[in-house]
Amino acid sequence: MTSQPMRTPSVAGIARAGTKIAELLPPTPLLECEIFGQRVWLKAESLQPIGSFKIRGAWHRLTDLSEDERGRGVVGVSSGNHAQGVAWAAQQLGIDATIVMPIDAPQVKIAATQSYGARTVLYDRPGGEDRDAVAQRLVDQSGSTLVHAFADPWVIEGQGSMGLEIAAQMAARGSAGPTRIICPCGGGGLTAGLSLACPEADIVPVEPEGWDDVKHSLAAGEIQPVSKDAPPTACDALQTPSTRPINFAVLKGRVPFGLDVSPAEIRTAQRWAFSNLHLVIEPGGAAALAAVLAGKTPVDGRTAVILSGGNTDTAAFAKVLSSSV
Amino acid sequence: MTSQPMRTPSVAGIARAGTKIAELLPPTPLLECEIFGQRVWLKAESLQPIGSFKIRGAWHRLTDLSEDERGRGVVGVSSGNHAQGVAWAAQQLGIDATIVMPIDAPQVKIAATQSYGARTVLYDRPGGEDRDAVAQRLVDQSGSTLVHAFADPWVIEGQGSMGLEIAAQMAARGSAGPTRIICPCGGGGLTAGLSLACPEADIVPVEPEGWDDVKHSLAAGEIQPVSKDAPPTACDALQTPSTRPINFAVLKGRVPFGLDVSPAEIRTAQRWAFSNLHLVIEPGGAAALAAVLAGKTPVDGRTAVILSGGNTDTAAFAKVLSSSV
Repeated sequence: MTSQPMRTPSVAGIARAGTKIAELLPPTPLLECEIFGQRVWLKAESLQPIGSFKIRGAWHRLTDLSEDERGRGVVGVSSGNHAQGVAWAAQQLGIDATIVMPIDAPQVKIAATQSYGARTVLYDRPGGEDRDAVAQRLVDQSGSTLVHAFADPWVIEGQGSMGLEIAAQMAARGSAGPTRIICPCGGGGLTAGLSLACPEADIVPVEPEGWDDVKHSLAAGEIQPVSKDAPPTACDALQTPSTRPINFAVLKGRVPFGLDVSPAEIRTAQRWAFSNLHLVIEPGGAAALAAVLAGKTPVDGRTAVILSGGNTDTAAFAKVLSSSV
Repeated sequence: MTSQPMRTPSVAGIARAGTKIAELLPPTPLLECEIFGQRVWLKAESLQPIGSFKIRGAWHRLTDLSEDERGRGVVGVSSGNHAQGVAWAAQQLGIDATIVMPIDAPQVKIAATQSYGARTVLYDRPGGEDRDAVAQRLVDQSGSTLVHAFADPWVIEGQGSMGLEIAAQMAARGSAGPTRIICPCGGGGLTAGLSLACPEADIVPVEPEGWDDVKHSLAAGEIQPVSKDAPPTACDALQTPSTRPINFAVLKGRVPFGLDVSPAEIRTAQRWAFSNLHLVIEPGGAAALAAVLAGKTPVDGRTAVILSGGNTDTAAFAKVLSSSV
């Protein structure tokens, strides 16, 4: 994609993103909780103003645009959380934003994106329409800047700022930094950012069953897209067909393996967060917690678990609460 | 009640409580939100470890017990949130705790109280059994200290520490302190604490319809208990038959009036917090927000609204989400 910036995400960029974000947004809570008799740190990014961590990368990207680029607007591609991040940042900065969203995205996410003043263009994800092609057409027409949801150095750096925030919050509570960070993973933007931000921590990406392309890519040592017959998933936020070279270049050799979780494990985690934390976590946002509760990854007193978003429909959440599996 | 401490709650006591609580617990988030085009500050006390602000007063009270008093244990009386506060603090400090709870309290609150190692004694609230008499019997038998849910100077001071925390958080974000604090009100412990902690703010207590004894007491200039035929309410946390002299002495002349909210207004506020904040708020915890959303009190850029707790059953919350009124 011609407008794709090709620079490499950097530790310095993450520090700069962290400074800009700290000026704008108070840190989200790092909640302490006991799981299997062990203290675990839970990062509640669902409490960001847009309901997810995606505000970080979008803010870092849009604030770094030149005056000329700002005037020509931005195009985002997203099932909803990145969409809201770009729309929110664009509204704050007075930039025109157009967001390409799947026609089957949660209504609550489409409505929220529009509420920040962004134009939405829906594409036929179930029918296999190529969202990047739709976005590229818009970019070619308007000369605007594409802000990719994960394959963008600014976006990776912005998401990585979360790692610095976690380490600072642990330090303020008398703890050394994280030894392990377990995070939901879609395209690998957050996973790459955390990998750079916290070089001493093991990073464990968690994907929904059947959408575990990062897991397979790490095992194979090369990018492996999701299978064409991937099952339906409630984790719209993690439903990405493939990671990208800019992300995989960071992950390869740095992140040894990925995990996957089943729909029932995700619902269990959503109910656990409801009962124990009084937080609304969307399915994709609960993937890392699901892996912990299912015993798929060890935890120690310096393990951080990312609760990445809370944007879910009332009907869907009521169904999760009422379900016993 | 012979064991009732009779000292007056003080501003100095609130400052001391605030210091002790800050050493133990990170501040709960003060979320900024737009309501009716106006920025409002929402204090998410539902994110305290026990799921409500009641941890404050319980911690201040129990840490001030002498070694001798600690050895004889404590008795709490509560529908559940104060119960969990006392049980949690007692567990941290190695003190025996017995909690008198209504037989119709939410199961989730009874189970949580027991999970902190406290003994629970259930009384027949629907049948009109006098909970204070039950508690007094336990105190007389064991020589333990009664920790009342609201009619206790330490408890009032502890809850008041929230006001100092709000002012400090607003200052850190470049704002002067609150001009108005809207808070859920049961017996008046939090209302009294905030009244003392924030002398320059209007304090607006909000009660459930039919359980608005503080509202009537303020209007009458003397304590008026709840009517014997008060309607059922989902706000178990605010279901107190009467405020007490120690609370009313602070409120009288300081707090001009109270408000009440209907069951539908409370459900609307719970759904609003779900969609806009991604927080689980219990019915009683949503009373202040309900009054704001119903337009029953003005808000300005320095208004704080207390979201006091999040302890609710999954089934009850699923029903609120699924309800359209």
